[in-house]
Amino acid sequence: MGDPISLLSERFVKFPGIGPRQAQRFVQFLLRTTPSARRELANAILALSGTHRCGQCMRYHTGEEATCAICLHPSRDAALLAVVASDTDLDALEKSSAYKGYYFVVGGTISLATERASVLREKELLKYIAERIDAGLIEVILAFPANPEGDYTGSQLKAIIGEKYPGIRISSLGRGLSTGSELEYADPDTLKSAFSGRR
Amino acid sequence: MGDPISLLSERFVKFPGIGPRQAQRFVQFLLRTTPSARRELANAILALSGTHRCGQCMRYHTGEEATCAICLHPSRDAALLAVVASDTDLDALEKSSAYKGYYFVVGGTISLATERASVLREKELLKYIAERIDAGLIEVILAFPANPEGDYTGSQLKAIIGEKYPGIRISSLGRGLSTGSELEYADPDTLKSAFSGRR
Amino acid sequence: MGDPISLLSERFVKFPGIGPRQAQRFVQFLLRTTPSARRELANAILALSGTHRCGQCMRYHTGEEATCAICLHPSRDAALLAVVASDTDLDALEKSSAYKGYYFVVGGTISLATERASVLREKELLKYIAERIDAGLIEVILAFPANPEGDYTGSQLKAIIGEKYPGIRISSLGRGLSTGSELEYADPDTLKSAFSGRR
Amino acid sequence: MGDPISLLSERFVKFPGIGPRQAQRFVQFLLRTTPSARRELANAILALSGTHRCGQCMRYHTGEEATCAICLHPSRDAALLAVVASDTDLDALEKSSAYKGYYFVVGGTISLATERASVLREKELLKYIAERIDAGLIEVILAFPANPEGDYTGSQLKAIIGEKYPGIRISSLGRGLSTGSELEYADPDTLKSAFSGRR
Repeated sequence: MGDPISLLSERFVKFPGIGPRQAQRFVQFLLRTTPSARRELANAILALSGTHRCGQCMRYHTGEEATCAICLHPSRDAALLAVVASDTDLDALEKSSAYKGYYFVVGGTISLATERASVLREKELLKYIAERIDAGLIEVILAFPANPEGDYTGSQLKAIIGEKYPGIRISSLGRGLSTGSELEYADPDTLKSAFSGRR
Repeated sequence: MGDPISLLSERFVKFPGIGPRQAQRFVQFLLRTTPSARRELANAILALSGTHRCGQCMRYHTGEEATCAICLHPSRDAALLAVVASDTDLDALEKSSAYKGYYFVVGGTISLATERASVLREKELLKYIAERIDAGLIEVILAFPANPEGDYTGSQLKAIIGEKYPGIRISSLGRGLSTGSELEYADPDTLKSAFSGRR
Repeated sequence: MGDPISLLSERFVKFPGIGPRQAQRFVQFLLRTTPSARRELANAILALSGTHRCGQCMRYHTGEEATCAICLHPSRDAALLAVVASDTDLDALEKSSAYKGYYFVVGGTISLATERASVLREKELLKYIAERIDAGLIEVILAFPANPEGDYTGSQLKAIIGEKYPGIRISSLGRGLSTGSELEYADPDTLKSAFSGRR
Repeated sequence: MGDPISLLSERFVKFPGIGPRQAQRFVQFLLRTTPSARRELANAILALSGTHRCGQCMRYHTGEEATCAICLHPSRDAALLAVVASDTDLDALEKSSAYKGYYFVVGGTISLATERASVLREKELLKYIAERIDAGLIEVILAFPANPEGDYTGSQLKAIIGEKYPGIRISSLGRGLSTGSELEYADPDTLKSAFSGRR
């Protein structure tokens, strides 16, 4: 029912950032590959069902252990815990080598339109902070995007964490000129942050 | 060996126009869908192996017949045969409703760098033209992109077809101002075509 | 009254396509040049008042004669007259070497929003066509942009010219694939023109 | 000698960011305005010769006083002096309301290709710092763009100022996520700054 070419094209259209034209191009690309290449792609997609969230940081991983390789790594800095919105943000921080502490993926930001986040894992975060305090945690870093929803999510989490663990330092990522910025094109908020965060 | 997340990401990187960042985003998107959605996607990919080229126009299709629905359609104009480079170009023409004749997908254009086309189906084209002549063919339209490779492929095919079937009219798509063009931004070649093709 | 820097910046903002930021950059650029360079620029601007419209084609020129160099040139093709919207379009055609006949700058296109053109020189056009008929004119080419306003202007002028000079051939620039076009990205109208204008 | 239309077009081509096509469009725009509008524009350009650099901050201004309105303003914060590359950067900071201290336009950044800056006013800067110290200066803020040339210029000036006025605090604009930044698209340097500048 329905032909495979259109059916597959309709599925690719649901992929983030993919329109009908590129979806069709994906199908044509797959038509030109070999049946065995298509089988391997299908298997790779099915294998995702073998992945699971790390019991600590909540990111997806595929290790045999319940806990992921980052959380198990012996040389992470136990004094720091970065709370991030998504696996993608965690990956970005990890790749930058800017940070060596632990992570927690809270699962999104709060939409300002609805003031609701589909899956914000607040309870799990508070529980995990307790665990990390036992392991030497000193500071929680709210590492959210520098936009209104990131700010709002950060301020909400700051309130919740501060109330429950008043002894813990809570910080946010620094704002200011990003690499390559010209003053001429910087927005007033960024310039204000750049002045207040000067050093 | 190798974890499913990276493995799948590596496969998506091979998709046309997809970089590492978007490949990762595809994987994260699939991780967030349900196992059954992933199973359906995998099945849709595997189902492509059930598609086959139409025995006449050579485009991929999935009908039970050897011949595709366009070629089987009773009201196509038997006087016309459009030769196109790819399934994608055939789809573009078909969607525009600009054309009601038959098609033949020749499988690419000739690269000017190498003067070789990987899979130009010239013999099959000549054979199919013979069939269509019996069905009333009057004109072959070389419907290639308006670039040097399209021009070169068209002129080569014109020579081959003209030699074998001297009675057949052979035409190329008209050149000129495309919809929305300003004279100011049109290149000299396009302006020349616009003047010589005025009416 | 008002400081020269802001005053000049406000004048540059009125230039086509120039926003406040680039206007400021122009002023800073002029501040860094020499007073004599500024004087030369000011003189070049004042010298525009010495230009005048050609008595035949209506484009701006600066020759001592009432008639411009193009219209005076002995080897133009007297059989052809291209009617264009603006001096800029005339320049584009002239640079392309696509055309060797005479020109007439009608002064704009008719806005579809208002159905009014500020300065469409229709009467002057009809008068000039009469002159050119005496010189051997056979065909008027309506060389307008390939957009709805260009089409509408062309069709209005065609009606007016056709009524007054029924013996004159009236043509429009050819439509079709412009140089470099892929079929995949061409709009349906362009594909229709490409098929109907095939040769 | 040479016609005014091309002459003016050639002058506009020298404007920053202006190519031949836009230069021509400027000329056509001016041709369509009135002689008196052109006269006013020419006068506005000539009036720039009445502007002069402020004797303190070095920016161009047109006040009757030798010193500009910003430097004369009674409520600026005498504890702060921001050193900027250009008038444009000074304007950007001033418009953002991020800063209320004094300014000094040093006249550029040092090119890393040549290690030379055409007009870096280092001597004038040192002299002006001495003046401002007498007025209560505590901190010099090096407000350069967040790029290699801005960094290099800042570090050079920091060395020179630090040597001559060891008691003065010298700071640079804060780095980090600029407003609207996603972690995913932030470069590693920016993420490092965001972590080290967290608060």
